[in-house]
Amino acid sequence: MNAPAQLAHLTPEIHPRDVPAALTAALQQRFGAQFSQTQAQREQHGRDESPFQVPPPAAVVFAESTQDVSDTIKLCAQHKVPVIPFGIGSSLEGQLLAVQGGISLDVSRMNKVLAVHTEDLTVTVQPGVTREQLNQELRDTGFFFPIDPGANASLGGMASTRASGTNAVRYGTMRENVLALEVVTAQGEVVRTGTHAKKSSAGYDLTRLFVGSEGTLGVITEVTLRIYPLPEAVMAAICSFPSMADAVNTVIQIIQAAVPIARVELLDDNTVRVVNKYSHLTLRESPLLLMEFNGSPASVKEQTEAVQEIAREHGGADFEWADKPEDRTRLWTARHKAYFAAVASRPGCRCVTTDTCVPISHLADALLDTVDEANASQIPYFLVGHVGDGNFHMGYLIDPASDSERAKAEDLNRTLVMRALKLGGTCTGEHGIGLHKMDFLLEEAGGAVGLMRAIKKALDPDNIMNPGKIFHMDAP
Amino acid sequence: MNAPAQLAHLTPEIHPRDVPAALTAALQQRFGAQFSQTQAQREQHGRDESPFQVPPPAAVVFAESTQDVSDTIKLCAQHKVPVIPFGIGSSLEGQLLAVQGGISLDVSRMNKVLAVHTEDLTVTVQPGVTREQLNQELRDTGFFFPIDPGANASLGGMASTRASGTNAVRYGTMRENVLALEVVTAQGEVVRTGTHAKKSSAGYDLTRLFVGSEGTLGVITEVTLRIYPLPEAVMAAICSFPSMADAVNTVIQIIQAAVPIARVELLDDNTVRVVNKYSHLTLRESPLLLMEFNGSPASVKEQTEAVQEIAREHGGADFEWADKPEDRTRLWTARHKAYFAAVASRPGCRCVTTDTCVPISHLADALLDTVDEANASQIPYFLVGHVGDGNFHMGYLIDPASDSERAKAEDLNRTLVMRALKLGGTCTGEHGIGLHKMDFLLEEAGGAVGLMRAIKKALDPDNIMNPGKIFHMDAP
Repeated sequence: MNAPAQLAHLTPEIHPRDVPAALTAALQQRFGAQFSQTQAQREQHGRDESPFQVPPPAAVVFAESTQDVSDTIKLCAQHKVPVIPFGIGSSLEGQLLAVQGGISLDVSRMNKVLAVHTEDLTVTVQPGVTREQLNQELRDTGFFFPIDPGANASLGGMASTRASGTNAVRYGTMRENVLALEVVTAQGEVVRTGTHAKKSSAGYDLTRLFVGSEGTLGVITEVTLRIYPLPEAVMAAICSFPSMADAVNTVIQIIQAAVPIARVELLDDNTVRVVNKYSHLTLRESPLLLMEFNGSPASVKEQTEAVQEIAREHGGADFEWADKPEDRTRLWTARHKAYFAAVASRPGCRCVTTDTCVPISHLADALLDTVDEANASQIPYFLVGHVGDGNFHMGYLIDPASDSERAKAEDLNRTLVMRALKLGGTCTGEHGIGLHKMDFLLEEAGGAVGLMRAIKKALDPDNIMNPGKIFHMDAP
Repeated sequence: MNAPAQLAHLTPEIHPRDVPAALTAALQQRFGAQFSQTQAQREQHGRDESPFQVPPPAAVVFAESTQDVSDTIKLCAQHKVPVIPFGIGSSLEGQLLAVQGGISLDVSRMNKVLAVHTEDLTVTVQPGVTREQLNQELRDTGFFFPIDPGANASLGGMASTRASGTNAVRYGTMRENVLALEVVTAQGEVVRTGTHAKKSSAGYDLTRLFVGSEGTLGVITEVTLRIYPLPEAVMAAICSFPSMADAVNTVIQIIQAAVPIARVELLDDNTVRVVNKYSHLTLRESPLLLMEFNGSPASVKEQTEAVQEIAREHGGADFEWADKPEDRTRLWTARHKAYFAAVASRPGCRCVTTDTCVPISHLADALLDTVDEANASQIPYFLVGHVGDGNFHMGYLIDPASDSERAKAEDLNRTLVMRALKLGGTCTGEHGIGLHKMDFLLEEAGGAVGLMRAIKKALDPDNIMNPGKIFHMDAP
């Protein structure tokens, strides 16, 4: 085990650039009370849900309009000072940390739903609107926005990290559900990518280029999203399995049979155990699948029958069903509480989260050895998974004071990422590269990183947009 | 009507670059019988289905491997000579015309299905595989590839133009169905974009950037695609309507009700008339919807019941149904023959095809005035439409010798494009920009074209990859 190499993942390179007083004075003058240099604000904007500790940005601008975003970038561009977009701070891989110093550009006040077009199955929102807020505003329309990454993330942030979550198996990710964007470029220019047409062959797909670019190419100031009619019927189910292999093979067969399941999530027995304790549940402490089925009543019936048959072949037992909203929520408690239960199981711990995604036929290959390795390491962990997409997360619960635990966790992470890549998969299904996976991206994408770097240089020649993330500007 | 401005669309700027003898000698030496300078081969590679006349490329290389593609590009790059990828020649907007001279790089011999992974619902193919060939090779697997642009196009070409067609309303376009690519860059470097995982947040979405880039950023040498299980039940239907408004409003309601219809195509009464004559049919000569429903028997029943109810509210009549393959094909004859019937209705004509796509709620606004304008112009035309996506095609059948007809057709095209843009739509749903719509792209995308240009300059600094397409390198 090569501990120092692994630890590099947890000690990002920090090269703060000079933030001249002329810039902060200009920002102060332009933005007044929307500008802050207080320690509290800087620190709040200098950390996310990642395990990194980095000095905070020099100041924060609270943008309230596209014009504010443009003016901030133009002022920063004059001084070649980094601009780091900030939504709600729920990113997991260090995306918003000021590794090269600069200004945090908080768009959380840009939180208006600008247009709801149920007749076109689209909405247009400002980037600070959160997914829960959007669904709250849609609640009387009969439509909803399905992408659910767990956290109540901002939709601008979700677009920036190409987020997905539990519903992606049925509804796709932000890649499929962002129709068009307004972005402000590294030069402060306001540009619209795409139209509101459902499909288009009009030139390069800039929408998809900005989705997942983690703020490194510009700042998203408007997002046009697809919405969906609320399904006529919704059925939730949970089911226990004798082994992880049985649970995983059930999922593989559900997907291969093209059952249009809306959600299918996996918890391993270890995770069920901590959730039982945390939430006072009495679930059988064996691998658990949590499922949801959407559609017409007839379609939901077909889906549940097909899934029951597959599950039974793999020893699935203790099926519980719920169709009323409050009962569905209760049934899914184990999933919703898994993270909190796990973190509470080891007070004071920090969580190193993994995010591999593999072709569905390789899910068992990717997952079973990973669990064995985690058990052998004796690092406490939890496992949750959007397994219908071949995506799962290990959360290694480490003592932040223990270099050896950090190194072990990173070594486990590296082993499982390398396994996923060998199986045709990716190091990150939905969390993004940020700071944490830059080395993994090189392993995964090889020469393609050179193209990414060339695009970044072309659109942001002074490297002011969220610098130091995804890849280094100097090869490799 | 500003005739000269419109005619500019049909007279692309031609600036052939010098192709030095040293290059053709080097290609001849490297490729032997895979290299051709015959007039016949040059001319065959110098025309597509667009209405343009342009001098042919200087020579043709028949690539048989990724290495061949890489070597061709490297040799051409040494001399800064254009490379124009060629699949099967079915593009409609002048994408493969040698407006700046250069070498046609024919990939049609790269026609192997490299891998079929039904267990992952994916296939990997070489770019010269056509969609019919792929489905032929899949026929015993129980899976199919749904994207059907009409022509038996190559899958590399379909990826390059972000093609779609009749099934897109249910299955999406090439944007949604290409999982990963192997491409050769303008420097001759072989790069893989994406993995075989269903979703990923690993860096910039280069796959989506190359899909739709019309050969201007590199040459696609492998395509990994999603495939789908053959539906358990398939039902086809046709239905006539008293008016275009009734037919269009039926479609709008079907989509808004989220009926998962697999195909919904529109012919106007004029087009039904020419098809009746050409194919000796007796369809009622009024607007016609052609539909297909896929799914389980219960789901197909639900869909057909929902659609019948909506159609009846709009005066839909003469429903005909078919579930056997040969009957379905017969029912869809009118759609399959529409283009040929229309072109045959005016011997010697050329066809100027439009391709707007608008948000579904604006389909009637986009379409009804367009039909009135076509009728008033007295230019013969046909109308077919992938109306479930808000996409339709007018085909203006012009006398190629008549400047006035060309000008009229282009004026009609311009009017309908401007209307579509005003309605939040795009100038091209699926055919691409090519040469024909470069002015329209500027109207549609505005400042975004500057970003496209910067990306092109970054990845292809000598502008050798299919130059002169999509946008001009010198603004605007």
